Amino acid sequence: MTDVQVRDGGVDQGTGYGRAPQHSNNTLIEVGPGTACGELMRRYWQPVAVSSDITTVPKKVRILGEDLIIFRDRKGRPGLLYPRCMHRGTTLYYGKVEDEGIRCCYHGWLFDVEGHCLDQPCEPNHGEGHREKVRQPWYPVEERYGLIFAYMGPPEKKPVLPRYDVLENLKPGQEIHALMGGFGSTGDGSFDVLPYSWLHMNDNVLDPFHVQVLHSTFTGAQFHPQFALMPQVDFTQVDDGVYYSAQRTLDDGRHVDRISHWICPNIMSVPSIFLESGPSTMVSWVVPVDDTHYTQAFATIGNQLSGGLKIDGSYWGEKTEEERQRVPGDFEAQFGQGPASLHSEEHLATSDRGIVMQRRLLERQMKVVAEGGDPVGVSFDPAKDVVHVRSGNFFRPSEAAE
Amino acid sequence: MTDVQVRDGGVDQGTGYGRAPQHSNNTLIEVGPGTACGELMRRYWQPVAVSSDITTVPKKVRILGEDLIIFRDRKGRPGLLYPRCMHRGTTLYYGKVEDEGIRCCYHGWLFDVEGHCLDQPCEPNHGEGHREKVRQPWYPVEERYGLIFAYMGPPEKKPVLPRYDVLENLKPGQEIHALMGGFGSTGDGSFDVLPYSWLHMNDNVLDPFHVQVLHSTFTGAQFHPQFALMPQVDFTQVDDGVYYSAQRTLDDGRHVDRISHWICPNIMSVPSIFLESGPSTMVSWVVPVDDTHYTQAFATIGNQLSGGLKIDGSYWGEKTEEERQRVPGDFEAQFGQGPASLHSEEHLATSDRGIVMQRRLLERQMKVVAEGGDPVGVSFDPAKDVVHVRSGNFFRPSEAAE
Amino acid sequence: MTDVQVRDGGVDQGTGYGRAPQHSNNTLIEVGPGTACGELMRRYWQPVAVSSDITTVPKKVRILGEDLIIFRDRKGRPGLLYPRCMHRGTTLYYGKVEDEGIRCCYHGWLFDVEGHCLDQPCEPNHGEGHREKVRQPWYPVEERYGLIFAYMGPPEKKPVLPRYDVLENLKPGQEIHALMGGFGSTGDGSFDVLPYSWLHMNDNVLDPFHVQVLHSTFTGAQFHPQFALMPQVDFTQVDDGVYYSAQRTLDDGRHVDRISHWICPNIMSVPSIFLESGPSTMVSWVVPVDDTHYTQAFATIGNQLSGGLKIDGSYWGEKTEEERQRVPGDFEAQFGQGPASLHSEEHLATSDRGIVMQRRLLERQMKVVAEGGDPVGVSFDPAKDVVHVRSGNFFRPSEAAE
Repeated sequence: MTDVQVRDGGVDQGTGYGRAPQHSNNTLIEVGPGTACGELMRRYWQPVAVSSDITTVPKKVRILGEDLIIFRDRKGRPGLLYPRCMHRGTTLYYGKVEDEGIRCCYHGWLFDVEGHCLDQPCEPNHGEGHREKVRQPWYPVEERYGLIFAYMGPPEKKPVLPRYDVLENLKPGQEIHALMGGFGSTGDGSFDVLPYSWLHMNDNVLDPFHVQVLHSTFTGAQFHPQFALMPQVDFTQVDDGVYYSAQRTLDDGRHVDRISHWICPNIMSVPSIFLESGPSTMVSWVVPVDDTHYTQAFATIGNQLSGGLKIDGSYWGEKTEEERQRVPGDFEAQFGQGPASLHSEEHLATSDRGIVMQRRLLERQMKVVAEGGDPVGVSFDPAKDVVHVRSGNFFRPSEAAE
Repeated sequence: MTDVQVRDGGVDQGTGYGRAPQHSNNTLIEVGPGTACGELMRRYWQPVAVSSDITTVPKKVRILGEDLIIFRDRKGRPGLLYPRCMHRGTTLYYGKVEDEGIRCCYHGWLFDVEGHCLDQPCEPNHGEGHREKVRQPWYPVEERYGLIFAYMGPPEKKPVLPRYDVLENLKPGQEIHALMGGFGSTGDGSFDVLPYSWLHMNDNVLDPFHVQVLHSTFTGAQFHPQFALMPQVDFTQVDDGVYYSAQRTLDDGRHVDRISHWICPNIMSVPSIFLESGPSTMVSWVVPVDDTHYTQAFATIGNQLSGGLKIDGSYWGEKTEEERQRVPGDFEAQFGQGPASLHSEEHLATSDRGIVMQRRLLERQMKVVAEGGDPVGVSFDPAKDVVHVRSGNFFRPSEAAE
Repeated sequence: MTDVQVRDGGVDQGTGYGRAPQHSNNTLIEVGPGTACGELMRRYWQPVAVSSDITTVPKKVRILGEDLIIFRDRKGRPGLLYPRCMHRGTTLYYGKVEDEGIRCCYHGWLFDVEGHCLDQPCEPNHGEGHREKVRQPWYPVEERYGLIFAYMGPPEKKPVLPRYDVLENLKPGQEIHALMGGFGSTGDGSFDVLPYSWLHMNDNVLDPFHVQVLHSTFTGAQFHPQFALMPQVDFTQVDDGVYYSAQRTLDDGRHVDRISHWICPNIMSVPSIFLESGPSTMVSWVVPVDDTHYTQAFATIGNQLSGGLKIDGSYWGEKTEEERQRVPGDFEAQFGQGPASLHSEEHLATSDRGIVMQRRLLERQMKVVAEGGDPVGVSFDPAKDVVHVRSGNFFRPSEAAE
């Protein structure tokens, strides 16, 4: 190769030399106890497992930076406990589940699903008079839509567990299916937990523009072919979140308004990517596992996801590194930002106004919580537990007569 | 699953929300140079290898947070050296052992087992006049019971290497076997080094109660079936440590007093877990590798351990994750506390009084050492080098006439 | 084994007890932006890839602690860019190369090889009026000798890309071959990037003495057998570096003067290890990847290296751990110093005076750069771009008549 130079002329501008160090917006990334975002997340019920996965064999679960164990006692009640036994710290993962609760393997201390200590077999009188003073830290759980939800916030602020209108009033023959894992990122079950922050996926949902590039024109249609049309987009903030309305006139003349509603802090309802008509048939939760990992829980009408979505003829889990580089999808776009993005070097544009609205709403709600208030979307009234989800693909016929 | 709630009524108590951060008692965990526990450990000879394993091929060893190499010169003398050659730091692991010592591969500097530099071949006159000023850091070693012991403490305080009465005065045909590894945790040779602190195992030895749960009633007998009987236990502090006396009346009417003696700082003599009668036939040392790893050295009369101990029909190394969760043993109970336990959240009970006595004695001895004194159990008099070990299973016949 | 003790008599001297903590000379190790050594390295063109390896498929590269991507646009121009797209940070590793540059997969922003943003397809008018304000950080690159060189320093101080006289004025039939990887350490292609600092290899090149030990007498001849002769060595500092002259009288009576020239900061020209007569036919660059990794770029006359060098009958990549311990080479000697050496515990001797001169020159040049000056070996005059390389094996016949 001959010597090649590309020159502005004069001194090079804009090189990497001397750039200031960049950083993440930790307010949106850190989810552990006591962090702003962690305290916001903790004010809402978060899905922690699929109901049918939880049996009398304890499982490990990590959520919001906390390692826990989850099991079902022999009366069928789910329990979510801090794992280190309050005696001397052996994990209850090795415990044995009995009718009343779980018994630690080391010295047999027995705890129910609310952490009450019911037995200390090595102590005089099985610890009578003393076991009442020991409480295994626990979290309340409730089940709905085939998922187990946990409330990890201040007990006096525990809200009702919401219902979502798109998942209620099912027609005969309709069932709700529950799933957890990386289906929203890779399209298949390759990951139980994704190796990057919850915010990457949260940023993705109010971003209809990337669909036209990443999932359409960049390497070919990954969803419905008509996503190749750049939409006209409006973003609207509502009381509990933000939604976009992405309008397209299809080749056949029909007009479609695709509405995607994000609900504070981490709930979304993505309308059918195959442009099926009508309200959305799915609700999902982007659940932070810790600052640099998340998972996603899904409740869908019908079994929509477990079969996986092929991109360019194969599932993500079957692709080589070379294929993923050549035909990237959401996982590459999100994971490619790193475990946590460096927000200080972002250049947000008009196509990002949905994300700007989302992040502002989140930061405002974090402030509300820090100042002792209640964030949007929590209800303490069992009669007011239904959330209206606006998502869907809404068609109008073409204006020409058929 | 229908919605399920378990309620106290009112506001939930004792949840995980808002718990203070927990911590380890670092005084008992940290074993590096200059730490309280590290300085205590360094006042005693510590086993570092099995004699028959050490040859003219150098081996890496890590102990008390220090990386070293160990070898035997061609005169049969073991050497334990700081590995980084005092010339420019290449590890003597790649050195070549000669009659007089070990020669570094890079520039051929030769060191004997006391770190004297005997040759610098690239220097004028082989470094005469200069090599005397270089000393490869080393530690004195002595061999006994088939083990190589190292003394890593202040040279002027080097004690005699102890003898243990239960390993002396062997009968004809009796031999001592030496072993190092995780046999005391998993029962087999799966680990050379265990992935958790020395203290987990030290806590375990003066804990006769867990034997009745973990090794008996929890999932079935792992040792002698009569361990299912909860013992009557007395703990006694003696000059060099603590021992327990765990008394049981067996089904056949015999009374057994099982005595287990722990000797400061990390020496134990576990009597036969098959309740064989008489004094213990083993001494072992729980050797800290670093703050979150340990290994264990054993000297036994007869080859008691290398065949391994099956739990529930198989060796630990053969079990699946599912089997280990279902039938846990000492490894699960100890490793399940984490690499170092969080002592701030322990709730010690009456069954833990042996551990309380152990920890107090250890902390007292650390203070003695820090103030310039000599800890219990070290002797500087070769005529006073025998330690009396109290461990054993001592039977009395039943009180009814036979 | 009977009890064995080796004694000085009296109190042991020179043991490992109580040694002060040791440390690296970070001035020579740290190569990131803003560090003394990093700023020195950045004043010179550094090889970053082999030209023929760089295609329209982007590759990841790490150099001087910076992660970058490198590609060739469809006009054949190489581009070296900061990988995180200036929009929202997705790595351009998943980008698609077009005629004019590389297009990010997420929202399609297009950048040329100098980081100009040419298209923002989701923005009104493709971002006209706004994309001019976005610049993807980039580094200028030039190609020579089959390598792509990058300049990562202050733009106003960009020097000419040097030529090396030993690689110029080729004879008919001679070609230059380029290679990158660990060939200078293991002798084969086992490593693209070595797991230790650049300084280990830099120390190695002005060290003719180790050749007599490590590569000859220690386990047998690894290079020309005559390297077993300890050479007479002179070290000379010149304006741009240091060279040694290692003189030997061979068995056949010929006198060889082996000259090895190191050029500040990280350039070397190792003469033939088979003692082929004449000037060196290779130039190499020890390229710091980060503080604890480096790689090496080679430009050789003829294909000298890619076939690999066998040591003791096999390639490094084929050897077992046992074989590498028994017959160590440069990799073992260098990697055996650790990821960064602990310079505070070195004992440099007369055989190390070349290294002392090298390190002093490096530290002096770092000071020059820190004070705003130009280090040795950079030229800003295209007419003065040739560097004289002194390396070679220069023979004189024996003094006896043939």
